[in-house]
Amino acid sequence: MAKDKKVEQITDMEVDFAQWYTDICRKAELVEYASVKGFTILRPYGYAIWENMQRIMDAEFKKTGHQNVAMPVLIPESLLKKEGELVNGFAPECAWVTQGGSEELEERLAFRPTSETMFCDHWSRVLHSYRELPMLYNQWCSVIRWEKTTRPFLRSREFWWQEGHTIHETAEEAMAETEQQLNCYADFYEKVLAIPVVKGRKTDKEKFAGAEATYTVECMMKDHKALQGATSHYFGDKFSRAYGVTFTGRDNKLQYPFQTSWGSTTRMIGAVIMAHGDNNGLVLPPQIAPVQVVILPVAQHKPGVLEAARALKERLAAAGLRVQMDDSDNSMGWKCAQYEMKGVPLRVEIGPRDMENGQCVLVRRNDGEKTVIALDQLEEAAKEQLALVQKGLYEKARLNLDEHCWPAFSVEEARKLQEEKGGFIKTMWCGDAACEQKMKDEAGMSSRCIPFAQEKLGDVCACCGKPADKMLFWGVAY
Amino acid sequence: MAKDKKVEQITDMEVDFAQWYTDICRKAELVEYASVKGFTILRPYGYAIWENMQRIMDAEFKKTGHQNVAMPVLIPESLLKKEGELVNGFAPECAWVTQGGSEELEERLAFRPTSETMFCDHWSRVLHSYRELPMLYNQWCSVIRWEKTTRPFLRSREFWWQEGHTIHETAEEAMAETEQQLNCYADFYEKVLAIPVVKGRKTDKEKFAGAEATYTVECMMKDHKALQGATSHYFGDKFSRAYGVTFTGRDNKLQYPFQTSWGSTTRMIGAVIMAHGDNNGLVLPPQIAPVQVVILPVAQHKPGVLEAARALKERLAAAGLRVQMDDSDNSMGWKCAQYEMKGVPLRVEIGPRDMENGQCVLVRRNDGEKTVIALDQLEEAAKEQLALVQKGLYEKARLNLDEHCWPAFSVEEARKLQEEKGGFIKTMWCGDAACEQKMKDEAGMSSRCIPFAQEKLGDVCACCGKPADKMLFWGVAY
Repeated sequence: MAKDKKVEQITDMEVDFAQWYTDICRKAELVEYASVKGFTILRPYGYAIWENMQRIMDAEFKKTGHQNVAMPVLIPESLLKKEGELVNGFAPECAWVTQGGSEELEERLAFRPTSETMFCDHWSRVLHSYRELPMLYNQWCSVIRWEKTTRPFLRSREFWWQEGHTIHETAEEAMAETEQQLNCYADFYEKVLAIPVVKGRKTDKEKFAGAEATYTVECMMKDHKALQGATSHYFGDKFSRAYGVTFTGRDNKLQYPFQTSWGSTTRMIGAVIMAHGDNNGLVLPPQIAPVQVVILPVAQHKPGVLEAARALKERLAAAGLRVQMDDSDNSMGWKCAQYEMKGVPLRVEIGPRDMENGQCVLVRRNDGEKTVIALDQLEEAAKEQLALVQKGLYEKARLNLDEHCWPAFSVEEARKLQEEKGGFIKTMWCGDAACEQKMKDEAGMSSRCIPFAQEKLGDVCACCGKPADKMLFWGVAY
Repeated sequence: MAKDKKVEQITDMEVDFAQWYTDICRKAELVEYASVKGFTILRPYGYAIWENMQRIMDAEFKKTGHQNVAMPVLIPESLLKKEGELVNGFAPECAWVTQGGSEELEERLAFRPTSETMFCDHWSRVLHSYRELPMLYNQWCSVIRWEKTTRPFLRSREFWWQEGHTIHETAEEAMAETEQQLNCYADFYEKVLAIPVVKGRKTDKEKFAGAEATYTVECMMKDHKALQGATSHYFGDKFSRAYGVTFTGRDNKLQYPFQTSWGSTTRMIGAVIMAHGDNNGLVLPPQIAPVQVVILPVAQHKPGVLEAARALKERLAAAGLRVQMDDSDNSMGWKCAQYEMKGVPLRVEIGPRDMENGQCVLVRRNDGEKTVIALDQLEEAAKEQLALVQKGLYEKARLNLDEHCWPAFSVEEARKLQEEKGGFIKTMWCGDAACEQKMKDEAGMSSRCIPFAQEKLGDVCACCGKPADKMLFWGVAY
């Protein structure tokens, strides 16, 4: 940490939420812009968050039998085109390789925007018998989608993700997988990222290109805008048929397997920033924090202070925590501000007076709460405080969500509620895409999902007045 | 495992080594060809090996303070061109993106062949003071080099690797880093992959485009051909100057940092195949084996056998080993052949007679050695046998290397030795690139390295007869 560096002020989130967000991305040293338009660099601190996310999710995927693979990054245009809806959905956003070395390619190759086509192509060559099913694959990689406007983590031309792709003997098994993976995402959001989600199904208008059904976890940010957290898709046997993926079934006849895919991306880092951050910077849930505890020696020039601080560091590291000690010659104020900006969940302060009293001070990042503890209880107390950070973050985010869901009974009422209060607007919906378009055009909201937890708000569609038996969540989405 | 599947024979390595190699790649289910020419798919078993390699190496990198990042995959041509040697080295092999979405790009973008340019560009924007140095970065990703002829793992248009990139305040520190990372690779090869290496410096002809010096670990395969294992490069301040990377030094003046890069790739899997494999298939060193122990119940229909096998599995898993139990209805012969093909280092057999005697049988993959052990010693014995596999693999590979290094004193003698005996041919060398070319043209060998462990074979160059004080290793390389 450089002595001559200052922790700069960031924009107030009440004044300009978008600028506040960008300020955190830059000043917490998560990302940096690259010299290629629309591309970003994940810096060490940002990447370390992503690594923690990857480690936790990857372990969950493996527990349920998924295996990682690596598919080629380039997809021949003809292969991409075999399934009409998919290519219509993604071709307009592809980056195309047209030259390899000194040769002009006969066929242009798309940088993968998603890899259903590659997985199907592979399976069409390696799958033979029902005994080999299910095939439960996942890959961690980057994809490119040529977006017009970009924002760090939320929308960039290249982003990092995992894409799970599976095939199954029966439709029921594939549907169960789709559901299982949606729940896996929901658990990750709620239990790891401390962000409550609304689980539901996407409308046909909003579903993944080529999918029979898309399920989603939707979250709410501090500005009451919606963010699609992760999605899980059921394809039926549509892609299998398009790509000629077959197997010999139990009845000795050739059959098409049923398919799923599911994905989550580095946008989860954006979700964490906007769900938990404050005007002092980032606030990280403990499980994904690169540094969970920072130890700051007070009056570190006094005899024994540094040694005491170092001892605390070693004890916490031995207890399995990710811990740092800052003995740089920066001021205490600078250090506090710096680690707040970086969202370190717990700060431990120890100085001469604490040492005399056999104690130290624990300060939670999320609510600033200070706790004085006896030194011999350090490990236990630190873990307890981290659990309280996690709990505090979740509860606050839960409140934010619960207090910003509004029922509406007309497009105009929905528009007003969004304008005045923000959040998720819930209405009955007839199922007609024209009504979705109307809500978009007149109230500026897209449908977020048809929540699994339905409420019967009435009998008629808020958009057209026709009979309706589904409740839909609407929102202004990132 | 499908009952109706057969373990197919693979080509005899003595008859056709290249075909033997390809057979293993396919039949051990490591890779599959993709529908894009020159690209391969890493299948679950191959990728699991790569994951184990990554985990071990990544932990080593982090121990010495390196941090992971993610740089954009596309590099503008103008950025790539700033350093002349690098672009001359890589531009002919680049894949070029010329279209993004529906727009023709004004400037074409190269799919990264290596990322020195991106790191330098980033550093030119974020580096300010000597206090921020060193910056020790690494990334795990794939790169593309548009090769004409390809072979799984050894040479493919896309491959997976790690590329470390660091900048330092002084030349000495950068040189120490280059050396440290070379030693890190050497240790990984010798202690994890059980492959002995020759450490040395590349000649100017063979060094990395743009580097001041390239260091390498060179290995020998079972066919006595050479394989470049991994490389570590020292750049001086050449790239810093080309890309305008500067910092304010201790003297308060603007300075250029000194730079290194170092990389290792999925070709390490190819090295493992060719260093340890045999005519029954793959042989994996225990630390990178996705399955370290397979348990095969003998006469599994007999009462209690499956339960006993399952108990062994649970005990070994609890002891921290990666273990599988195969209770499929395939024959014992099929199972043995299958797990030999997959290179599982240790097989445990248990049947009714073993149970009566309170014992089981441990069989090592590398030399077929069987050991009968008392059941209560399972954990200890399994770990001991795995250590013996590791030791046996290393010793055999060591012998293969030591017994195939031949001194030569003329190009003609070198040619004959390579033709008749194969391996590394060592000669004195004057330092002239023309002599390297002569060896290439007349003896079909490239220079592998100037080994750190020098021997004085004589006073004159084997190629031109002029005074020479360096000993060089030559070989036919993959």
